[in-house]
Amino acid sequence: MRQSFIAQLEELNNNVIKMGSILELSTNEMILALNNTDVDIAKKIITRDDEIDLLEQHIERECINIIAKQQPLATDLRKITSIMKIITDIERIADQCSDISEYIIKLSKLPKINAPEYLTEMISAMKKMVSDTIDSFVEADLEKASRVIPADDEVDKYFLKITEELSEMMQNDPKSVPQCICYLMIIKYLERMADHATNISEWITFIITGDLALG
Amino acid sequence: MRQSFIAQLEELNNNVIKMGSILELSTNEMILALNNTDVDIAKKIITRDDEIDLLEQHIERECINIIAKQQPLATDLRKITSIMKIITDIERIADQCSDISEYIIKLSKLPKINAPEYLTEMISAMKKMVSDTIDSFVEADLEKASRVIPADDEVDKYFLKITEELSEMMQNDPKSVPQCICYLMIIKYLERMADHATNISEWITFIITGDLALG
Repeated sequence: MRQSFIAQLEELNNNVIKMGSILELSTNEMILALNNTDVDIAKKIITRDDEIDLLEQHIERECINIIAKQQPLATDLRKITSIMKIITDIERIADQCSDISEYIIKLSKLPKINAPEYLTEMISAMKKMVSDTIDSFVEADLEKASRVIPADDEVDKYFLKITEELSEMMQNDPKSVPQCICYLMIIKYLERMADHATNISEWITFIITGDLALG
Repeated sequence: MRQSFIAQLEELNNNVIKMGSILELSTNEMILALNNTDVDIAKKIITRDDEIDLLEQHIERECINIIAKQQPLATDLRKITSIMKIITDIERIADQCSDISEYIIKLSKLPKINAPEYLTEMISAMKKMVSDTIDSFVEADLEKASRVIPADDEVDKYFLKITEELSEMMQNDPKSVPQCICYLMIIKYLERMADHATNISEWITFIITGDLALG
């Protein structure tokens, strides 16, 4: 019994890591697609979203099965219930990559305008949060997880800055409104991705310390 | 043991219903605040969000405790793990009421413009989804839960319609851009609220039928 429990926990852990790797791939490709308005990559990301949904459902069932059959206590139970929360956030971030991809496809059909000035900075701040979150799960690294949480403020600041930028752009050049709306939605999704990365880091902190401090 | 288990499950159920009632209050007040650009109500909603966060954490711990101490099986376990998911979605919908309230406060500081034409329809479609979701949990009503899921398409259609409307408004009257951005963010949150209501309905369906069909 104990042997199979350890094996099940290990498989569960590996599946979360696998889900994290697929998410990181989608995040990186989404950034590439956004920078180059690349419709082919955007479509690939949208298709991949189903794979992540299936993996979430699979891990979900795995967690419920382990709880039901192995009746884990204390630390293990904390880890399993936290994983149930973490995979929801991973799935949402993947959803947002897919949602952004839809807007990339929309942008590709409109006359090209310059991307907002601070978009690159916002993207790299968000990307670092997602990477640090996944790494901190893989390495059970509390310090890395705790770094993610304040980084969210930086992403929020870029969101406000770029909103201002887009507001001016639309007022000065009303023809750019449809494209600016796409960018507004894209930065909203980027900001949400950072929020979900923060949630995951809070759950990782809970797994390691037992301290639940959700915002 | 069995007696205390039944009592704990009942308390858990009541707490979710309580969380649902607070959410419904915030949703109704948010609609009122939005219709009248009422800053006082908007501020009240933002403050109430902490109460919902605390209740979520409390229910979270309750679930983990019941699983750890009572080791529930099959149907009960399914219900408890589903509740852990449901409360995340309830908390998110409440967050979105709070986020919309921030934009209502922003709108109150800008020159008044006419609200988008289809906003009222979008709000009432979303409101019905939230009410039906909470009712279907309270009444364990599968038919009501299943009604929520297709209603999401209606909300999505309004989102696209209003985005078009705001796009035209900004192109025809660039001075209205700051207000239109607020409305764009508001309808994005309304659309997300409907998505979370859909998630909850899927979890309620899972509680009742054991069939997990997450999108």
